[in-house]
Amino acid sequence: METHIRLKDFQFFLYDVLKVEELCKKSLYENHSKEVFDEIIEVAKKIAEEKFEPVAAALDTFDPQLKDGEVILHPDLKPAVDAFVEAGFIGSAFPEEWGGMGLPYSVYTACGAIFSSCNLPAIGYPFLTIAAANLISVHGSQEQKDTFLRPMIEGRYFGTMCLSEPQAGSSLSDITTMATLKDDGTYSLKGGKMWISAADHQMSENIIHLVLAKTPGAPAGVKGISLFIVPKFLGEGESKKRNDIKVVGLNHKMGYRATVNSVLALGDEGECTGFLVGEQHKGLLYMFHMMNEARIGVGMGAAACGYAGYRYSLKYAKERPQGRAPQNKNPSDPQLMIIEHADVKRMLLAQKAYTEGALMLTFYCARLYDLQQIAHHDKKETKEIDILLDILTPVAKAWPSDYCLEANSLAIQVLGGYGYTRDYPVERIYRDNRLNPIHEGTNGIQGLDLLGRKVLGDRGKGLKLLSEKIIETIKEAESSKDKTLIGLAKELKTSLQYVDETTKALGFLALKGKVNLSLSHSTPYLHLLGHTVVAWMWLLQANEAVKGTGNKEDSFYKGKIKTAQFFYAWEVPKIKMWGEAIRSGDKTALETTPDLL
Amino acid sequence: METHIRLKDFQFFLYDVLKVEELCKKSLYENHSKEVFDEIIEVAKKIAEEKFEPVAAALDTFDPQLKDGEVILHPDLKPAVDAFVEAGFIGSAFPEEWGGMGLPYSVYTACGAIFSSCNLPAIGYPFLTIAAANLISVHGSQEQKDTFLRPMIEGRYFGTMCLSEPQAGSSLSDITTMATLKDDGTYSLKGGKMWISAADHQMSENIIHLVLAKTPGAPAGVKGISLFIVPKFLGEGESKKRNDIKVVGLNHKMGYRATVNSVLALGDEGECTGFLVGEQHKGLLYMFHMMNEARIGVGMGAAACGYAGYRYSLKYAKERPQGRAPQNKNPSDPQLMIIEHADVKRMLLAQKAYTEGALMLTFYCARLYDLQQIAHHDKKETKEIDILLDILTPVAKAWPSDYCLEANSLAIQVLGGYGYTRDYPVERIYRDNRLNPIHEGTNGIQGLDLLGRKVLGDRGKGLKLLSEKIIETIKEAESSKDKTLIGLAKELKTSLQYVDETTKALGFLALKGKVNLSLSHSTPYLHLLGHTVVAWMWLLQANEAVKGTGNKEDSFYKGKIKTAQFFYAWEVPKIKMWGEAIRSGDKTALETTPDLL
Repeated sequence: METHIRLKDFQFFLYDVLKVEELCKKSLYENHSKEVFDEIIEVAKKIAEEKFEPVAAALDTFDPQLKDGEVILHPDLKPAVDAFVEAGFIGSAFPEEWGGMGLPYSVYTACGAIFSSCNLPAIGYPFLTIAAANLISVHGSQEQKDTFLRPMIEGRYFGTMCLSEPQAGSSLSDITTMATLKDDGTYSLKGGKMWISAADHQMSENIIHLVLAKTPGAPAGVKGISLFIVPKFLGEGESKKRNDIKVVGLNHKMGYRATVNSVLALGDEGECTGFLVGEQHKGLLYMFHMMNEARIGVGMGAAACGYAGYRYSLKYAKERPQGRAPQNKNPSDPQLMIIEHADVKRMLLAQKAYTEGALMLTFYCARLYDLQQIAHHDKKETKEIDILLDILTPVAKAWPSDYCLEANSLAIQVLGGYGYTRDYPVERIYRDNRLNPIHEGTNGIQGLDLLGRKVLGDRGKGLKLLSEKIIETIKEAESSKDKTLIGLAKELKTSLQYVDETTKALGFLALKGKVNLSLSHSTPYLHLLGHTVVAWMWLLQANEAVKGTGNKEDSFYKGKIKTAQFFYAWEVPKIKMWGEAIRSGDKTALETTPDLL
Repeated sequence: METHIRLKDFQFFLYDVLKVEELCKKSLYENHSKEVFDEIIEVAKKIAEEKFEPVAAALDTFDPQLKDGEVILHPDLKPAVDAFVEAGFIGSAFPEEWGGMGLPYSVYTACGAIFSSCNLPAIGYPFLTIAAANLISVHGSQEQKDTFLRPMIEGRYFGTMCLSEPQAGSSLSDITTMATLKDDGTYSLKGGKMWISAADHQMSENIIHLVLAKTPGAPAGVKGISLFIVPKFLGEGESKKRNDIKVVGLNHKMGYRATVNSVLALGDEGECTGFLVGEQHKGLLYMFHMMNEARIGVGMGAAACGYAGYRYSLKYAKERPQGRAPQNKNPSDPQLMIIEHADVKRMLLAQKAYTEGALMLTFYCARLYDLQQIAHHDKKETKEIDILLDILTPVAKAWPSDYCLEANSLAIQVLGGYGYTRDYPVERIYRDNRLNPIHEGTNGIQGLDLLGRKVLGDRGKGLKLLSEKIIETIKEAESSKDKTLIGLAKELKTSLQYVDETTKALGFLALKGKVNLSLSHSTPYLHLLGHTVVAWMWLLQANEAVKGTGNKEDSFYKGKIKTAQFFYAWEVPKIKMWGEAIRSGDKTALETTPDLL
């Protein structure tokens, strides 16, 4: 069965651009090879196409239900998730000592993107399990790892993340769930959680909730938050008993339906036992470690949705006859396939530019993780990588979720009326993707994180490092002697200047005490820097694509170059515009009082 | 019950800006007065709030069904539509001689926007009836008017528009439905129609389909299309019999569900009788007359959706506590209402700017209709008005449907996770609104219509006239001595220059025979001109708002000025950007061959 997935798209990111095969020269990944990577990715494609994609439409028609305290899911979900687990994907990026495969995170990300593009909501269960397992693997005690991590990697236990509460979504400092120490060293939890994905189901033997809560007398705000492991079931075998953490309500969403989302009650009817992770009051710190990965994961999922919509609408455009060329006045001539119309090509190019730019960015971040792991393993300095990942994370979360949603809207538009019906997948993917600008920190929060914390907060160190990396790519393009590359490099250099000027202007405002005015421009700043970063991602791709032209995959590489040109012609000019608009120092949003709205 | 509707918003467009009350000085509208208008608008608000808004969520949960050839709709739909009919709204803008109220179209548009903002899909039935009745009133014979128009205005008969076919959506020249003349002067129709809204239901005694079809031996293409009245039932009373025009399939959509959309078969099982409207082969011409109004109607509906989402998210933002000011590090302080956060204000201002700009534009077009009617009535020249309406129509259709969809996405974002659930109306409105860039000619088609036909096609006459109108508003702002107005006027003048330069560049390309390259920029051109037109709409509003400040509705007027400033600070710069990008003459979209995608 042919689906929308073209393996070359993923191989290009991994090998042509990121040279991921070279990671195998490092001792951490020495057991692996390009052949192993290719094999894994092919297995991912096969399972995604055979088990995930065919059930996506059916899962979308079904709202998870709550019956007698149990969550009922669509029956087609479990076989897909089982196939993922049985192939060992949960442990793919975990060390072998915990039962994993020890694959680079970049290769895991390629697999993740393939699965996500076929059925993003279904993949939520294993992805959350991986994120939770990851956190335990880094911050859990040896006992916690033995008890929870191993069965999670085996896929016998699944995991969740429990952060938000009804009164505290974007503002975690206001959570009120309490955890009180008991004589046996465990904690008794009481409170409620909101927006919890995958909080209950029957797909695993146990569900391991990672819960943020406060201990009695803890400091107010985020400094008083601790992290607890709260399993659905305590013990195993005969001593196994239900812990009092229960779904008490479901959130019915516009999309993403297969991932059940719910309201959780802890200790409402009985005892809810939890185990402290690490030290008290450091919960948010631990959670943030995982949240960065989760945010890049959201960006990857958004990009994968964009990719699915793009590839589907591309196929449709090649097969759907409609209309004639503008200058052809003969109605008796046969109709053209719509892909021949310039405006349809524009919509396809924009989708390709958004989604492949976004995928490239998330793969780039994933490779940074690999470099971080290698450095850890070799006991080397990771500071540069950390800083780079820090500044790229809000961009990698927000940019794909903004622009690949727009890509999905264009996919609908290519299909016209058909795209608006539920007979075609594009409207469903659009609905699924609409969640991505919201969860794991709204894009507004990402903007504040980027400008306030990552740019102004560290006095431009992160941005300086990022600029150096971008300039490396610019220099490579300049030294290529290829006219197109040199032209793009020049544009990117100018854009970088706009970023620099704009950052200085905002920094100056902050220095003058006008922090609120400076931060009121955080969303346009996020777009400004996001477009610059993605323009960089396209130059990275173009640099490699030029080397590939002329061989047997000539059209693949030429398509990359055309798309880079399209992005530079129609998207890069926005960088200048946002820069100018921000530097104008407009105070409208800041000064508008509620009564004027 | 308080809903999202604030009457002052509509009164401002009508009275402050458009001085609609002055229409009553003209003999055509001399029976009316501002008091009558106000009364009608208040009735519209009451019915919309009491009958339409409360059932919108329920209608959205129900997919119309086809049972034994009959379409089954949600039972809550009919009472709402009945209330609209009983209050006489179908005939509101029709002459009294046909049973109407003879209201100005602008006042009818205000009512329409109020209804649409409460329940766009439900209002589709009467709106289509009005459009069909309008067409019959202009092009139908006296007999056709007596037989069909009068009961339509009474609300006993409903109407539809049957243009598209499965193989001919955007390309009407390829329709194949045939109409063969019979001995009695009527026609026998055979064929299939696609995407037909409101094609069957039990809410009226009869359904009057206006069908495009070809006659045997007619010229190929659009020049061979004729228009037919095809009623669901032929005759009345005892002689009443079913005509063979039947729904054979339903399209299940992502939104807009209450408006049933279907596949129609004509003459599939028996005789399908139709009545020729006007002359043979002029069908598309007649239809276009109506289509312009329908297109502005789509823009109005999109703007109304934007308005509903804006007002709902505004209310939410005023009542939802979350987070603290950026500089407040004390977590024990109470949380702020989210409307106090600059980025939330930005999202609300953007919504207000998009939706009130879009509403203003559609009201402006509606007032042009009124001026056209007055001129017709007074037997005066309408050429200027016709040209202005012609060039504004694609903008009034496409701009609101692009940007008010974006507004709806911002409304979801303001609500965060709650906005993504079906417990709040914003996601439903977003889904409903996603149809508007597609139907009544996709926005891609609107771009081609604007650039190809309305700008280049008439060698800039329309654009010249439009520019003159814009300059009038600029001059008024300049003469106001108000610094803000003068600043906005300056920006608009510059934008107009960008439009001029860009139009000349595209015209030059076309003159040089590069028509395809010129037209490949039609969508960015539509955005360029659209933003300029809406910037004009905001200056129009600001000019009047300045006069209103200082009185008892001071904050309403100041809000208008702030929003105009916001639009000029963050949206108007895009005009320059699109202009530069278009003038760069980028050929990427045109030159990208399908194998590169």
